[in-house]
Amino acid sequence: MVSNADELAALFNDLCDAAARETLPRFRTIKSVSNKLDKGFDPVTEADQAAERAIRAVIHERHPDHGIVGEEYGIERPEATLQWVIDPIDGTRAFISGVPLWGTLIGLYNDGIPIAGAMDQPFTGERFMALNGKSNLSIRQGIATRLKTSDVTKLGDATLMTTTPHILKSDADNGYWKLEERVKLFRYGADCYAYCLVAAGQIELVAESGLNAYDIAALIPIIEGAGGLVTNWQGGSAAQGGQVLAAANAEIHAAALEALNS
Amino acid sequence: MVSNADELAALFNDLCDAAARETLPRFRTIKSVSNKLDKGFDPVTEADQAAERAIRAVIHERHPDHGIVGEEYGIERPEATLQWVIDPIDGTRAFISGVPLWGTLIGLYNDGIPIAGAMDQPFTGERFMALNGKSNLSIRQGIATRLKTSDVTKLGDATLMTTTPHILKSDADNGYWKLEERVKLFRYGADCYAYCLVAAGQIELVAESGLNAYDIAALIPIIEGAGGLVTNWQGGSAAQGGQVLAAANAEIHAAALEALNS
Repeated sequence: MVSNADELAALFNDLCDAAARETLPRFRTIKSVSNKLDKGFDPVTEADQAAERAIRAVIHERHPDHGIVGEEYGIERPEATLQWVIDPIDGTRAFISGVPLWGTLIGLYNDGIPIAGAMDQPFTGERFMALNGKSNLSIRQGIATRLKTSDVTKLGDATLMTTTPHILKSDADNGYWKLEERVKLFRYGADCYAYCLVAAGQIELVAESGLNAYDIAALIPIIEGAGGLVTNWQGGSAAQGGQVLAAANAEIHAAALEALNS
Repeated sequence: MVSNADELAALFNDLCDAAARETLPRFRTIKSVSNKLDKGFDPVTEADQAAERAIRAVIHERHPDHGIVGEEYGIERPEATLQWVIDPIDGTRAFISGVPLWGTLIGLYNDGIPIAGAMDQPFTGERFMALNGKSNLSIRQGIATRLKTSDVTKLGDATLMTTTPHILKSDADNGYWKLEERVKLFRYGADCYAYCLVAAGQIELVAESGLNAYDIAALIPIIEGAGGLVTNWQGGSAAQGGQVLAAANAEIHAAALEALNS
């Protein structure tokens, strides 16, 4: 078990550093991109794979009894109470395009409940981290800032982000457009970075569909610890991915849920 | 006249620094956003205005005979041979959303021909600069890298960016969708940053519509100096904005033009 907040912070920093040593040198220099799909394009790079191996190596060494779920290398010890949920590069499309909005996502679950998470963007030098509800910070150039969500409560004053409208594939996703037309400003293209902007009080909403558990696990404690909410589009748990709504506060979350289901 | 490349580089650096002193401290801290439009939302902030005033002050002091065209404060000395074309914050929507893909754009035209340009992104610490065809660099953390476009020539291997499909407003813009469906990967949301990624060899294409001269002026010499092309969707000059296509090389430019007009 990892119970001490300082110890947990040190562990998360070591995990982020281990991943960054594999990702950052390959950002904008990588040539080889593989496609996971027979039809369509789901890119994976040696940076994704090397970063996940580096994260797993640290966990194996320090906490060999913990479970791991990762995008690239699957499940280890699913019976463990403490589970690490890892996306070594969330936003691989951004990564291979040179856009510094990808991130390394590392979440820690206790019996299925998210208790800590980190998002690391080593090119901009930003690290967002939430630990056991005891601290909730963004760290850049040695300066830590407490994360606090926006107090904007009306859709007409809000900014909404989604990675791309192309992730909205089924009729069940059409509620997104109802939400988009009611906000002040919407933006595309930010992957996990958008969720951290909710935590940092810069935007109010992210609505996406088709997510995997490892796309959102690390981000739930970061947003919740900053005062926000993360649910699915029905208001239930988002821990398994699917349709996800992140919101700055309860009022705008309720308004966005209503729009998504109108 | 500014004829010496070192002198010109120093001047561009001073202009970028003057703007960054106004933009960076306001990034993620600004509260007041004005709307330029009665209908719709075209944001402008005190950061846009203060940065353009700072750029103009440097030009007034060093080269009072030069002309200036800027987004926020209009035209000065339109009869001058040398004209500065300025967008103090290209990507104001990104700026007010906390996304570090906005940039300060400063272009220099001689008798209507773009001869030098800079894009500065002070949060990521990146400065892209092209000077009289004599140097063409991105500079970050004191390290200068020569800009060189991609040698990918086929649409099926290419990455395309556009700020948002919502800028495609008229039937005349529908060619964009023909292009999008033929590329390997497309991304939204990068504003001027996307053009610099073409110059840096990270992506192959940007196609946008409805641009103003100040949205593209600074970027043309940066892309052309790195081996790329910037035209309108008919293959003519893009210096006045409108429908703009930036491409990594002549082959992919021709293929993209054909798709846009198919």
